[in-house]
Amino acid sequence: MKKMYSMFNLNKTKEEEAVQSICIKQIQFADQKRDFNKRLSKTGRRSRSFSQSSTVNYNSDCSEDATSPRDRQQRSSKGHQDFCIKNIRQAGLGRREIAIAEQEMPALMALRKRAEGEKPLAGAKVVGCTHITAHTAVLMETLSALGAQCRWAACNIYSTQNAAAAALAEEGFPVFAWKGESEDDFWWCIDHCVSLEAWQPNMILDDGGDLTHWIDKKYPNIFKMMKGIVEESVTGVHRLCQLSKAGRLCVPAMNINDSVTKQKFDNLYCCRESILDGLKRLTDVMFGGKQVVVCGYGEVGKGCSAALKAMGSIVYITEVDPICALQACMDCFRLVKLNDVIRQVDLVITCTGNKNVVGRDYLDRMKNGCIVCNMGHSNTEIDVASLRSPELTWERVRSQVDHVIWPDGKRIILLAEGHLLNLSCSTVPTFILSITATTQALALIELYNAPEGRYNKDVYLLPKKMDEFVAGLHLPTFDAHLTELTDEQAKYLGLTKTGPFKPNYYRY
Amino acid sequence: MKKMYSMFNLNKTKEEEAVQSICIKQIQFADQKRDFNKRLSKTGRRSRSFSQSSTVNYNSDCSEDATSPRDRQQRSSKGHQDFCIKNIRQAGLGRREIAIAEQEMPALMALRKRAEGEKPLAGAKVVGCTHITAHTAVLMETLSALGAQCRWAACNIYSTQNAAAAALAEEGFPVFAWKGESEDDFWWCIDHCVSLEAWQPNMILDDGGDLTHWIDKKYPNIFKMMKGIVEESVTGVHRLCQLSKAGRLCVPAMNINDSVTKQKFDNLYCCRESILDGLKRLTDVMFGGKQVVVCGYGEVGKGCSAALKAMGSIVYITEVDPICALQACMDCFRLVKLNDVIRQVDLVITCTGNKNVVGRDYLDRMKNGCIVCNMGHSNTEIDVASLRSPELTWERVRSQVDHVIWPDGKRIILLAEGHLLNLSCSTVPTFILSITATTQALALIELYNAPEGRYNKDVYLLPKKMDEFVAGLHLPTFDAHLTELTDEQAKYLGLTKTGPFKPNYYRY
Amino acid sequence: MKKMYSMFNLNKTKEEEAVQSICIKQIQFADQKRDFNKRLSKTGRRSRSFSQSSTVNYNSDCSEDATSPRDRQQRSSKGHQDFCIKNIRQAGLGRREIAIAEQEMPALMALRKRAEGEKPLAGAKVVGCTHITAHTAVLMETLSALGAQCRWAACNIYSTQNAAAAALAEEGFPVFAWKGESEDDFWWCIDHCVSLEAWQPNMILDDGGDLTHWIDKKYPNIFKMMKGIVEESVTGVHRLCQLSKAGRLCVPAMNINDSVTKQKFDNLYCCRESILDGLKRLTDVMFGGKQVVVCGYGEVGKGCSAALKAMGSIVYITEVDPICALQACMDCFRLVKLNDVIRQVDLVITCTGNKNVVGRDYLDRMKNGCIVCNMGHSNTEIDVASLRSPELTWERVRSQVDHVIWPDGKRIILLAEGHLLNLSCSTVPTFILSITATTQALALIELYNAPEGRYNKDVYLLPKKMDEFVAGLHLPTFDAHLTELTDEQAKYLGLTKTGPFKPNYYRY
Amino acid sequence: MKKMYSMFNLNKTKEEEAVQSICIKQIQFADQKRDFNKRLSKTGRRSRSFSQSSTVNYNSDCSEDATSPRDRQQRSSKGHQDFCIKNIRQAGLGRREIAIAEQEMPALMALRKRAEGEKPLAGAKVVGCTHITAHTAVLMETLSALGAQCRWAACNIYSTQNAAAAALAEEGFPVFAWKGESEDDFWWCIDHCVSLEAWQPNMILDDGGDLTHWIDKKYPNIFKMMKGIVEESVTGVHRLCQLSKAGRLCVPAMNINDSVTKQKFDNLYCCRESILDGLKRLTDVMFGGKQVVVCGYGEVGKGCSAALKAMGSIVYITEVDPICALQACMDCFRLVKLNDVIRQVDLVITCTGNKNVVGRDYLDRMKNGCIVCNMGHSNTEIDVASLRSPELTWERVRSQVDHVIWPDGKRIILLAEGHLLNLSCSTVPTFILSITATTQALALIELYNAPEGRYNKDVYLLPKKMDEFVAGLHLPTFDAHLTELTDEQAKYLGLTKTGPFKPNYYRY
Repeated sequence: MKKMYSMFNLNKTKEEEAVQSICIKQIQFADQKRDFNKRLSKTGRRSRSFSQSSTVNYNSDCSEDATSPRDRQQRSSKGHQDFCIKNIRQAGLGRREIAIAEQEMPALMALRKRAEGEKPLAGAKVVGCTHITAHTAVLMETLSALGAQCRWAACNIYSTQNAAAAALAEEGFPVFAWKGESEDDFWWCIDHCVSLEAWQPNMILDDGGDLTHWIDKKYPNIFKMMKGIVEESVTGVHRLCQLSKAGRLCVPAMNINDSVTKQKFDNLYCCRESILDGLKRLTDVMFGGKQVVVCGYGEVGKGCSAALKAMGSIVYITEVDPICALQACMDCFRLVKLNDVIRQVDLVITCTGNKNVVGRDYLDRMKNGCIVCNMGHSNTEIDVASLRSPELTWERVRSQVDHVIWPDGKRIILLAEGHLLNLSCSTVPTFILSITATTQALALIELYNAPEGRYNKDVYLLPKKMDEFVAGLHLPTFDAHLTELTDEQAKYLGLTKTGPFKPNYYRY
Repeated sequence: MKKMYSMFNLNKTKEEEAVQSICIKQIQFADQKRDFNKRLSKTGRRSRSFSQSSTVNYNSDCSEDATSPRDRQQRSSKGHQDFCIKNIRQAGLGRREIAIAEQEMPALMALRKRAEGEKPLAGAKVVGCTHITAHTAVLMETLSALGAQCRWAACNIYSTQNAAAAALAEEGFPVFAWKGESEDDFWWCIDHCVSLEAWQPNMILDDGGDLTHWIDKKYPNIFKMMKGIVEESVTGVHRLCQLSKAGRLCVPAMNINDSVTKQKFDNLYCCRESILDGLKRLTDVMFGGKQVVVCGYGEVGKGCSAALKAMGSIVYITEVDPICALQACMDCFRLVKLNDVIRQVDLVITCTGNKNVVGRDYLDRMKNGCIVCNMGHSNTEIDVASLRSPELTWERVRSQVDHVIWPDGKRIILLAEGHLLNLSCSTVPTFILSITATTQALALIELYNAPEGRYNKDVYLLPKKMDEFVAGLHLPTFDAHLTELTDEQAKYLGLTKTGPFKPNYYRY
Repeated sequence: MKKMYSMFNLNKTKEEEAVQSICIKQIQFADQKRDFNKRLSKTGRRSRSFSQSSTVNYNSDCSEDATSPRDRQQRSSKGHQDFCIKNIRQAGLGRREIAIAEQEMPALMALRKRAEGEKPLAGAKVVGCTHITAHTAVLMETLSALGAQCRWAACNIYSTQNAAAAALAEEGFPVFAWKGESEDDFWWCIDHCVSLEAWQPNMILDDGGDLTHWIDKKYPNIFKMMKGIVEESVTGVHRLCQLSKAGRLCVPAMNINDSVTKQKFDNLYCCRESILDGLKRLTDVMFGGKQVVVCGYGEVGKGCSAALKAMGSIVYITEVDPICALQACMDCFRLVKLNDVIRQVDLVITCTGNKNVVGRDYLDRMKNGCIVCNMGHSNTEIDVASLRSPELTWERVRSQVDHVIWPDGKRIILLAEGHLLNLSCSTVPTFILSITATTQALALIELYNAPEGRYNKDVYLLPKKMDEFVAGLHLPTFDAHLTELTDEQAKYLGLTKTGPFKPNYYRY
Repeated sequence: MKKMYSMFNLNKTKEEEAVQSICIKQIQFADQKRDFNKRLSKTGRRSRSFSQSSTVNYNSDCSEDATSPRDRQQRSSKGHQDFCIKNIRQAGLGRREIAIAEQEMPALMALRKRAEGEKPLAGAKVVGCTHITAHTAVLMETLSALGAQCRWAACNIYSTQNAAAAALAEEGFPVFAWKGESEDDFWWCIDHCVSLEAWQPNMILDDGGDLTHWIDKKYPNIFKMMKGIVEESVTGVHRLCQLSKAGRLCVPAMNINDSVTKQKFDNLYCCRESILDGLKRLTDVMFGGKQVVVCGYGEVGKGCSAALKAMGSIVYITEVDPICALQACMDCFRLVKLNDVIRQVDLVITCTGNKNVVGRDYLDRMKNGCIVCNMGHSNTEIDVASLRSPELTWERVRSQVDHVIWPDGKRIILLAEGHLLNLSCSTVPTFILSITATTQALALIELYNAPEGRYNKDVYLLPKKMDEFVAGLHLPTFDAHLTELTDEQAKYLGLTKTGPFKPNYYRY
């Protein structure tokens, strides 16, 4: 284990570690009063739809058997019964899905390969609560190959791919999840992951913080053995920070939401593509020559506006932060107030993470046919509630597309009822999922193997070296060839040849 | 003073301050063994040429009077004699230059306006050592308007604009600088800024660290009264960090080299334009269809490659850092090893900060007519020394352009002898100078007014709020209109309406 | 009529007219031996799928009534019976569709407005054979407003929107079309448009040439009264040119396929968007960093490669024409032979109009997971037939997506079985449909009103002035404001203030 | 000769030829009343500055010898005296210049190579009147290698590179040209090219039409033997068309100004680079975030606006032609009237070919510091005359840069006094010169070898096949690899494998 770990070249100096924990304190504790009880979008910023890229028609699952999985006892071909899923007979289908996903996640496969000799997660007992899909199955089977035992529940009541869950169960993984769980099912599944006397987890992989929350409430003793928590979502990280601030965080936690690769790829590069995809699928709008206002010029806004500019749209930006505003100017966008352009634009896109960015007053002044959608964080960016008033008529013209009609006949076209456009209208590329899954695996390895004292009971950012390592594992996808420093160059730069190559504050 | 300061809304929490000092420890102390004794490029990464955008022919200065300024006693029209410059009679010309520069530096003029009621630098005695140009004059006169007294020397023996220096002297500023100083003159001028019994500076504005170094060596007592040091250059910051590490830094220092606006604008946006400008002025090369390899995909490499792609060049990237490498891939560039493309490219551009990136072995394999130049940090990126060997012929075809000719007749075209291309082949836009000068002024205000205990004897990054403030002062240049948060939105986001808007680790 | 026509400012000089007919002779008669009997794609280059942008689920039509429309006698609310469609009761739905389409086709609505006073098509009897959709309905009702009588059949057995057809029938238009016609139905419908003794058409609006062909074969006498033919498709134009060459064209014909606006918008701008849309809908591929080879750098290839470059793909181009090849170079693409990159690319897109561009030898050498698709003219660009061989396994993984699997397990992903990707995988923006429909209307007006002798029995390009007129009618969509020449400027340029503004050979 | 010619594969069908002559009649005879007596810019649209890319300081020529070349008898080393140039002793320098230029003009060198066996211009006596530079020398020596005899004068009194002229004279070419000719010298030189009894030219290569004009006036008999005229400039083509219209054109003429490669490369691609270059050299303006209005969206406007957008400028377009206007919209530019943006823009660029596009009323309303320049055809696009009025002050701040100052202190920055910005402020890439020179050579070959009857006494466009051939000769510069059609494909497309590949009306 030691050896393999060192292969990853991830030893850090004392100073590097120190900073990780302090930096996290800078996170804006903005979400404090938000309602966390949103089953659908609880994974934060970049909630996802999963494309069903295979031959399976998952919808048919639903009709198949009306009995709740909780009421049926199933058995894998090898006799395992420690799971609760829709239908074990779908295991074959699921296995095929997983095989396809494996081809698209070479970084995890590379980790498995490295794990042939050594098992950096030997002894680890990982309890997970994430979306359960073929991609997650590749992650779980990788963790297993690295030596870990896993128990898993779903972090979302709708997103489970039943066939993938079946394949995992067939393989012997204790999985508790199905598509279309009730609220009660949701917590029941989580509980079944952690309530065993015989199997006490020593690591948590969470997406949204519900699992951590459940353990904290019900089984606080589990934290005593715990090596650490790995958390992916904005919301989950926020909860951990609150615990930390309150002095109630009992184990080290790793915030992988803010790792470089995840941020840049999940936001900038992913949104650059999904804004076009989402809009086309819902509206077939031609982008060329359209006037668009993008509210917010963070990574998401940068991605959206770059894509639309490239397609020939005339893009205006609104911003509150003068630095991002200046970037928008230098990137050839007019920085305006929403008020100045609202009457003339064909398309309004919110990317702010803020609330009431597009209020009723703006909606009233939009021109006929204006399309309004949200690519940002929450579903409060557009004040959709204000549109549910008697003088306006709603007309559902297509799934996820509503015409809201004013008394004078003006229509605006509201997408996804103001929820994230890429939540259900476009898909997240496997490449992004692969980056996140690899980051999760490495974060688990890091926390599990960290020497005493490296991490305290605090929330940490992923060490830069690991970010670099994840990035490096994904380069072969692009047939990209990295240059290696010579000894002389490394010395000149004051770096080790294997990185990290940048100071922590480097902005990329 | 208090009041004005609060206008800037720059109060920070305890936590924010704490981080500034720690973060800076992450800077790579890479330059340790470099030779600092380079007069020409000592200001580090982005040394500059200053375009002479006016009617004055500065060259005529030289012939005018062969006597050293040190041997002549001059007198301003009001009888001041406390300066040493080329020729006080050029004051009129210089004043006109300054008037033009004022138009292009609205942010400093805005600061002056705000200073009408209150003087945040009242009592400050600033000793400066920077390039002395019309733009610097605008800065100095702004500091004066803010309440400060100033004494100034040049940080570079060639860069002084004599007319601007004359105008400053005429206005009563003690300025010690002229174009074409000797090494001895250089230190003599610095010494004349700090050797006065009667005028003990309490702030330093340095660019390259020579002034700080001189005081440290000769007048260490001055540090006792000192409120702080503001340093612009990579080299100077490095020196300060060494002092800090050695426990010998006696006052707080502000690193403005790494402020967001300076970094992004000096590097990404500025290089995006200056790479084209520099290449065209020297070689008239057509960019369309040319194959180019850009070594390094940091901010400079990103700027260069984006510009060349936009002009129709086919760009390859080399990188050592896998994260930057992955960005290059996503930005549509092939990531290669130099070895794989060196025979086919028309143009090689180094942007690494590293040494021997383009060694003799690569130079030997370039094709006839290949252009080689450096946009990075040092003049060691291209191994120019290896080209000074007897079998190769050098032919100077134009100022800054050499043909290096191989025995078989092959020529490569070496620009600026491997020094920074934009050192003397292109100009830095006034906009960039304005950002830097404004940042310097604000850093002085911050250090001078900081309450006891906010800053210790360490090196600090500029508070984010000030970065945002500088950015905001430059938005009117673009007729850009910032959106203001409502009270409700600010509360929702957990922000104050005046910023800072992002956590310190935000990457932009 | 005269007056309205002159409003359009479309008088041309003798010389202009002369050229139109000669130019057309330059068309490459390339298609001579092609099989025209392709019902699905017969409209040539840019065959289309029509998005179902409304609330209607057209699929439900099919199940509704199994009786053939030919076997049922239906009646409109006003008692009309001269039509044959699926179900007159869908007229309400269809009318709503048409109302929506009208909003998106302001140029036709502007023509209607102009027609209030005068009827440039008064007396015209137009028989049409085009796709029958809500958009076509807007055209037909515009023609009617301009004074024409219309009879219509579908040019495609699948593309008819039954509700739109119902609305037209309800309005009194003799329409003969339904979704899912048989081959026999197809010709039966066409025949019912032209076989009336009582109603002899004097103009043809054709899309694919089938209607013209039918009249030529069965009712050649009709041509005697005929004022002209307007033809939209490559195929139809080709057939007309063959007739012309053979001396058998009896009336003037207008080729609107090659008009500037149609070409640039249908090809360059439309493909720029639809390549991304089509690929995303079928494969969810991430574009960033992908290596793509685009075969052909005409308008379609230019659009595809520009879009993919903007999304971060690395694009290679293959070309046979050295001029287009040089353009590719200047636009920053590597010009390669397919052979040189076939092993490394992730995506192969054909845009050539040629056959066997991607043969089996290339398919054999593609890497695992390579996506292959066609954006060009015919379905012969990729040699799909060669893939239907026993050693290869086909796996349909999604509608329009096949995995073709080699014995060693390598899979390539073939889209739309090599048919046009945007035939059924993406939608054509209404804006494009609007341009084409407006051009059709104007071409009918021009031919119908042309003075004796302006047009002979030949194939003509649309007069440039009309192209400009169509473009001008679409500018308000973009809130675009055209500058008008002053009298003095027009004189200086030797132009009339209303155009045409460019010589015929101008390339845009 | 026959054989070589056929190597070029340039046989055309009857129909192709027919069109060439007719098309030309479409040229807008716009220039009729312009004053042709402009020595400096008479070559029309794209007049040029030639960069002095070598070690020679041509300015030193002037001081060297005050005697007029006409008053001195010089002699080459071989005893030739039939020339009149500045100084034969500069021949060595000039030869070196030519050697460098040869490296950059591989297409002409390839023609020489092909000419080793056969001489397609054997017997041709070409009299030329063009700029005389090293690049022209490469053309002349190529014509000589192809079998022609040459006599040459300059088309511009300032543009002659004396050293290149000397090298030509030394080589035995009768050259009559020097830098700084008087008006009288100019015609004297031309006259010396054509007044010989013993040497009657049978071909003309003209740039601006002065030579043709002189022969027409003074030696009309020469036309009797003449095989044809090749003319490069807009102005010259216009003159020829006037002659043709008047029935006074006695020989076939080839308009190479409108060939595809020249148009697209001279205009779109060249201006894309030279707009940035010219603006930077003169003003050092930062492009990022600047608001720019580009008047005219032809090829020049397309190039300028694309470049500025890429550099981060916000670009507005004005247009009179609705088709170009629609293109601007689709390319993501706001189409405005100048009036709507004139108060807010930082930069005004004219690219119209029109007059008084920016009149005094607009100049009055520009904001302080606005830069105004002309990239279009004539120096009348900006109404500079209106600025020469007593209430405005002109201040020359740099060569080619004037500040025009309003009574209220507002300054606008006028570049090149409204003449073409790229006339003297930027350079034309050698690549462009190479394309033009190669086109000239091929046009001479075509006219000289055309069988009786192919060309009449009219103005012709270059056959497309030759355009393609010129493009093909320049592909190796980019290491670009053309794909060849298979026999089967050529048959399918109805093309010959060697082109032409497109119909004449193809727009690229």
